[in-house]
Amino acid sequence: MRCVLVSKRLDLRGYFGAEFARSAPHVELVDHAAGAQDQDIRLALAWHPPDDAFERYPNLRAVCSIAAGVDNIMACPSLPADVDVVRVVDPGQAQMMSSFIAWHVIGHQREFAAFRAQQRDRIWQRRDQRRAEDVPVGILGNGGIGQRVAADLAQLGFPVMSWSRTAKPASQAGRGFHGPAGLAAMLSETEVLVNLLPLTSETRGILNGEVFGRMRRGGYLIQVGRGEHLVEADLLAALDRGQLSGAALDVFASEPLPPAHAFWHHPRIVITPHDASDVSINAVATTLAATAAAIGAGRRPPNAIDRTRGY
Amino acid sequence: MRCVLVSKRLDLRGYFGAEFARSAPHVELVDHAAGAQDQDIRLALAWHPPDDAFERYPNLRAVCSIAAGVDNIMACPSLPADVDVVRVVDPGQAQMMSSFIAWHVIGHQREFAAFRAQQRDRIWQRRDQRRAEDVPVGILGNGGIGQRVAADLAQLGFPVMSWSRTAKPASQAGRGFHGPAGLAAMLSETEVLVNLLPLTSETRGILNGEVFGRMRRGGYLIQVGRGEHLVEADLLAALDRGQLSGAALDVFASEPLPPAHAFWHHPRIVITPHDASDVSINAVATTLAATAAAIGAGRRPPNAIDRTRGY
Repeated sequence: MRCVLVSKRLDLRGYFGAEFARSAPHVELVDHAAGAQDQDIRLALAWHPPDDAFERYPNLRAVCSIAAGVDNIMACPSLPADVDVVRVVDPGQAQMMSSFIAWHVIGHQREFAAFRAQQRDRIWQRRDQRRAEDVPVGILGNGGIGQRVAADLAQLGFPVMSWSRTAKPASQAGRGFHGPAGLAAMLSETEVLVNLLPLTSETRGILNGEVFGRMRRGGYLIQVGRGEHLVEADLLAALDRGQLSGAALDVFASEPLPPAHAFWHHPRIVITPHDASDVSINAVATTLAATAAAIGAGRRPPNAIDRTRGY
Repeated sequence: MRCVLVSKRLDLRGYFGAEFARSAPHVELVDHAAGAQDQDIRLALAWHPPDDAFERYPNLRAVCSIAAGVDNIMACPSLPADVDVVRVVDPGQAQMMSSFIAWHVIGHQREFAAFRAQQRDRIWQRRDQRRAEDVPVGILGNGGIGQRVAADLAQLGFPVMSWSRTAKPASQAGRGFHGPAGLAAMLSETEVLVNLLPLTSETRGILNGEVFGRMRRGGYLIQVGRGEHLVEADLLAALDRGQLSGAALDVFASEPLPPAHAFWHHPRIVITPHDASDVSINAVATTLAATAAAIGAGRRPPNAIDRTRGY
C-alpha cells in the first residue's frame, strides 16, 4: 500500500524511512507535493500538515500521527470528516512519561531545589522531609499513559487521583473522578497536578487560575500535555501569590520557547524542551503497518481516535 | 520496664519522650549518668553511646538503636558480647529511601542536570533520551530496604541487580548476586551503583577505585549507606577521569561535611545532608516496646541483629 508523507515541519522520510523499510516493508512511501488529485492514496502519515494537504487525496481512509497526540492533524482544515485519525500507542512512551513525572513529584516532595541551594552555599541543614503519603497527586487524563503514571506513583507511595471527561472503569491505581464536579472534588485534595490531557476545544486553557486556586496552597504543576492547555499569565500569578510553589513545564504554546519569554528565568519554573517522552520510531512503523493492513482488509485501524470527541 | 537513654550526641528524651509516653507507656525512661553500677537496668536506647556507657549495667539484655543502622552501637568498647542489639525496621523509611534513590537514578538517566544548564542559558535543545531498559542499576545490600528499592526501580522499568554478602532467596525483584565473584559480575553490567550496605569491618571502604573501575564507563554512584564505605580520593579520581559521570552523596565520614571539603563545590557531585530517609519516631517507640516485651518474656527481641556478622 502507498502512504503519502505530509508535513510542513519534519522530514518524515529522513526520520522514519529506514525503520519503515524494516518494519513496514509493504508500505511504499510517497512524498506529498501540491498538484492534481491522486485517487490512489488511501493512507497518510502526517505531522503538522499544510492546510490544504488532504484536498489532493479524495480516497484517503486513514491519517496516522507520529505521536500520541493528534491535535495538529485534527486542526488541519482539509482533513475530511470521514477518515480515521490514528495515534501511536507505545508502552515505552508511557514508561518514559511516568518516570519523568515521578522525578518532578519526588523533587517537589523532597525539596531537592532547596538542597541544591544549600549545597551552593555549603550549608549542612537537614530538612523536615514529608512522606509520600502526605503528598496527593491529581492526574488530568486517564488513558494508557495516565494509568501507567498512576500505577508507578502509587507504587512509590503517593496517594493518586485521576480525572477524565467521562467515567472510567475502576481498574486503575488510585481513585477516579470525572466531569466538572469531579474535577473540583479532585483539585480540592490535590497538591501536585499532572496534566496529560489531549488538546481539544474542551481542554484548551484548562490549566487556569480557577483550577490552581482550587488546589492545596503551595501546590505544584507538572505540565506535559500541550502548551495550549495552560493560561500562562494565570500560572505566573499563581506562583507570585504562593498558591503554587513551582511548576515543571515541558510543552509550550510557542515552541521553541522564545528567548525573551518570562518562563526561562523564573526561579520556580523548571523547563524542558518538549522532551518528557517520545514514541519510538519502531512504534510509529508498527502503527503504520497495522493501519495499512486494516485498510486493506476493510477494517477500522487499531488506535483510531473518536473523531467527535477529538482523542 | 526501665530503659536507660544513652547518647553523647542527641537529647533522646527530648526527641522521643512524648511519643514513647503514648506508644510505649510501660517503658520508664531513665537518663544515663556516670556513676556506680545499676543492677536493675535490662534495656537501653542508644545513639553514639560514650565508650564506657555500658559498664554501669551488668544485667543489660538489649540495646535498641534509633535507626536502621547499629554501627555506632557496635563500635562502643563497653558493649557486652552477649546483649542483643536491635535495629529499627520501618517500611516508611524504605519507601523514603526508595523514592530518594529513584529521583537520582531518573535524574542521571534523563540528564536533568544538562536540562538545567540549558534553561540557565535559554537553550532549547532536545536531548537523545535513553529508555530505562538501557540503564542497569546495581544495588549493594539486599535487606528490607534494598528489596523495596529493587521493586520500585523495576516498576519504573530499570533492569535491577542486587548484591549481598551471602545468597538470598530469589523472591525479590531483579537478579541476585552474592560474594566477591558475584560483586564483580554485577558491577560489569552496572551503570548506576546504589550503596545500601550496613557498615561492618567487611564493608568499610568498599566504594573504591577498583569497584568504580569495574562499572560501565560514565556510571553514577548513589551513596546512602555510611560515609566510611567510600574512599573519597578514589571517587574524585573516578570523576576526574570520566569513569564516573556523577555521584549523589547523602552520608559522609565526617558529618556535618566540613565547609572546606572538596565535595561541596564539585560540579558532578550532588550533596544532601544525611536526609535520604529516616525512621519515624513512632517506629522507634514500637521497636522499644516490642524489645521490652521480649525481654520481659525471656524471648529474643524482634529485629535483633546477628552480632557475629554485625548487621
